[in-house]
Amino acid sequence: MTSLTAQNWPIAAAALPFPGTTANGESVTDAAPDEWASTLTEIADAGFDRLDVTDSWLRVGDLSEGRLDDFAAVAREAGVVPTSISAIRRSVIDHANGDENLAYSHRTLDAAALLGIETVSFGLHQALTVQQQAQLWFWTMDGHKDDPADWGLAVRRLSELGRHAGELGLIVSLEMYEDTFLGTADSAVRLVQDIGMDNVGLNPDIGNLVRLHRPIESWWDMVEKTLPYANFWHVKNYARDEDSARGEYFAVPAPMQHGLIDYRRAFRYAIEQGFQGVICVENYGGDGLSVCADNRDYLRRHVLPKREGYALGTSRVRQPRFEGGAS
Amino acid sequence: MTSLTAQNWPIAAAALPFPGTTANGESVTDAAPDEWASTLTEIADAGFDRLDVTDSWLRVGDLSEGRLDDFAAVAREAGVVPTSISAIRRSVIDHANGDENLAYSHRTLDAAALLGIETVSFGLHQALTVQQQAQLWFWTMDGHKDDPADWGLAVRRLSELGRHAGELGLIVSLEMYEDTFLGTADSAVRLVQDIGMDNVGLNPDIGNLVRLHRPIESWWDMVEKTLPYANFWHVKNYARDEDSARGEYFAVPAPMQHGLIDYRRAFRYAIEQGFQGVICVENYGGDGLSVCADNRDYLRRHVLPKREGYALGTSRVRQPRFEGGAS
Amino acid sequence: MTSLTAQNWPIAAAALPFPGTTANGESVTDAAPDEWASTLTEIADAGFDRLDVTDSWLRVGDLSEGRLDDFAAVAREAGVVPTSISAIRRSVIDHANGDENLAYSHRTLDAAALLGIETVSFGLHQALTVQQQAQLWFWTMDGHKDDPADWGLAVRRLSELGRHAGELGLIVSLEMYEDTFLGTADSAVRLVQDIGMDNVGLNPDIGNLVRLHRPIESWWDMVEKTLPYANFWHVKNYARDEDSARGEYFAVPAPMQHGLIDYRRAFRYAIEQGFQGVICVENYGGDGLSVCADNRDYLRRHVLPKREGYALGTSRVRQPRFEGGAS
Repeated sequence: MTSLTAQNWPIAAAALPFPGTTANGESVTDAAPDEWASTLTEIADAGFDRLDVTDSWLRVGDLSEGRLDDFAAVAREAGVVPTSISAIRRSVIDHANGDENLAYSHRTLDAAALLGIETVSFGLHQALTVQQQAQLWFWTMDGHKDDPADWGLAVRRLSELGRHAGELGLIVSLEMYEDTFLGTADSAVRLVQDIGMDNVGLNPDIGNLVRLHRPIESWWDMVEKTLPYANFWHVKNYARDEDSARGEYFAVPAPMQHGLIDYRRAFRYAIEQGFQGVICVENYGGDGLSVCADNRDYLRRHVLPKREGYALGTSRVRQPRFEGGAS
Repeated sequence: MTSLTAQNWPIAAAALPFPGTTANGESVTDAAPDEWASTLTEIADAGFDRLDVTDSWLRVGDLSEGRLDDFAAVAREAGVVPTSISAIRRSVIDHANGDENLAYSHRTLDAAALLGIETVSFGLHQALTVQQQAQLWFWTMDGHKDDPADWGLAVRRLSELGRHAGELGLIVSLEMYEDTFLGTADSAVRLVQDIGMDNVGLNPDIGNLVRLHRPIESWWDMVEKTLPYANFWHVKNYARDEDSARGEYFAVPAPMQHGLIDYRRAFRYAIEQGFQGVICVENYGGDGLSVCADNRDYLRRHVLPKREGYALGTSRVRQPRFEGGAS
Repeated sequence: MTSLTAQNWPIAAAALPFPGTTANGESVTDAAPDEWASTLTEIADAGFDRLDVTDSWLRVGDLSEGRLDDFAAVAREAGVVPTSISAIRRSVIDHANGDENLAYSHRTLDAAALLGIETVSFGLHQALTVQQQAQLWFWTMDGHKDDPADWGLAVRRLSELGRHAGELGLIVSLEMYEDTFLGTADSAVRLVQDIGMDNVGLNPDIGNLVRLHRPIESWWDMVEKTLPYANFWHVKNYARDEDSARGEYFAVPAPMQHGLIDYRRAFRYAIEQGFQGVICVENYGGDGLSVCADNRDYLRRHVLPKREGYALGTSRVRQPRFEGGAS
């Protein structure tokens, strides 16, 4: 395997900007392939050749084999390769729905294998509260917090998913998210270490953390601690201001190039740590897809290595495999 | 008439970034055509072929016929077509100056007809208060509020303008603005319905509303309700954050692609509702003209339909007419 | 000498985004030329042909003649011309380190002359306080304030630097910064007038002032008053909001084209006042170098005069000399 470059590094558009229900109120998961095709074509028209199947849009874990074939077919026709799956708000330690979420997560791994998707991301964040849903930006209000008593359960269940993924030849990535066991750099690293499997790493989505209306960890400290364990990466950025004398915090979604996190520096470090994972570009609010497209262009133009032969470090976890010219 | 595409949809630069007085303190309306030419050339140099004659820059309603010919001549020479007029802060129900503003509005329609401008936008916002003028952004402080007792008067006077416009073959568009009868989606739609004329519709300038330092209507609800009645569109965007627990609101002007309002989604819906009106790109503060130019490029590249033959809905109001290749 | 145009106006990348210590913890000033080369190559790769040697990255005033030759050689090889020096937080009226800072400033002038750098910027801002260093953005908390009693000392010492610079054929530029004698437009102009030397002017870095969490001078007033005395220009921008009813202020770094300051208008005025100085593009936070590159492109595309022969005013201070085609 050769190392990835700006030209062929897999960059997937998050399906995050697309709602999970159609104009008719039908679930996208239950909709006809034509409905999927329309979104996939829009993503392709924005210049993407790869897609992250965010399950707020489409739950492949709930599709039959025949329907998975349909999905693969329309993706092929649209010209976008489903390259990763992000299952969100399906915590396996949810006190009410943990068992169900675990079963769903296993089905999602099976679907990934059928679709030829190597990278699957899970998180410990739970459903938004009613108060969160009433905000302009849900992250401006506190939501679910993991209970330290559930640490062992988290390790057991995520390990179970890791083993299943391993049998299928897949890697599992755990998404950082506030107030969960994946909510700080130290805790996230400890969780991955406690799981201790080569194919289970981190998705250091530090954009989730720099947007909060409260004091935050330094973005660079988070990068420094978590990137050695990263095997997938949700990237997005925010403009942020704080007035600590008044206890005020403000943050708005921003193009990756303009926000607080210096992704030029972060990626240089990531490569020194051996990162070769899928990059999933995200953006909340507004015309998310257009900003995602700009984020992709920014990465290819300014951030990713132009040529092979750069010094690539050795990651603490297994990286996905991409054949030369796959992108 | 064929439907508009990204290539020929009329996009006008707002003259909003240009002051109404020259460096010498003279009113632009009283200035020599050379003075107009310099602004029009700057707008053309920014890549625009169409202009919204915002009357905070130039009041064509106060020009003689000879001076209107001069204006048309310098615009032709500069290569920008005056395509719409936005008369602002000239409310016809202003208690002090309503009669005068009504007369001015009629003169503005006559001037539009002479200039071959089909679209004229009026509003019910009134002069900024002294307190508003003292702010960095005037919209961060409350200003004039319409009195419900004046609803009938508004309907009568705007209908009178609508009839005059109809006789001249023009359309009238009513600009949404906070705390006026055009300040909420429901009220704006009701006003247009009460007027009930085919050539009187809405200018859903929801950027005016998403920048306020107070709770706001959802931008999407406003789009959904008002676009069926839109016949002209001031578009601009803002990055916005709220901290509802502390009762804090912040908003700053942002390029259309980066702000809160998803214009990709809004235009798709607008077209489903039959919108084929002039788009007037605006931006407050900073280098407004350069941001307007970016806004135009964003619309043509990412938002407007690439090809004719798309499914165009039927608007509740008459749309302006553009010959193929007019742009 | 012919007047500068968009094509050849010298635009230098600030070295501000680069830290003063290497990954090994060594001072960049003490590091091997290879270390310098890596940063200079990154700057060149971002499309820059000129560099501002910001002394938070490298203190040329502390290099031996041999090391200065090494620096010149690696810059030549990387393809970036060191065009200005910005010495920051080295106030010559610092009560503790004023003598040392004065000696350092003299050495910096000598180094500039050896490197063929004509423009050297000094400021009166002092070291960040511990509280400032603990903020996300240091400027959200008050720092050092100049003591009016030191005005005479400031004039004397800066005049001494001005004389030395004059002997070397250099110009000195004084950077605006809050709460120093260069903290308001009036005070900055008065300081330059009191110094009264043709080769000592202002660096009207008004971005330093529009980001503060407190009431600010109007950016345009600052431009109007200071540009007649400008001989160098740190340019950067911020998105800013104020809620004066609540006494709240919010500012985040923004690309020059998107922020509060209208650089299109500011540069038109600057040229009317005879400005022909080096432009140093800056940006704090995030991927500063990429934003600096966008700032440069914005200036060349939208702001600077396209052709020679424009009306150039007469500056109150001497401008640097650039041969045609030097850039």
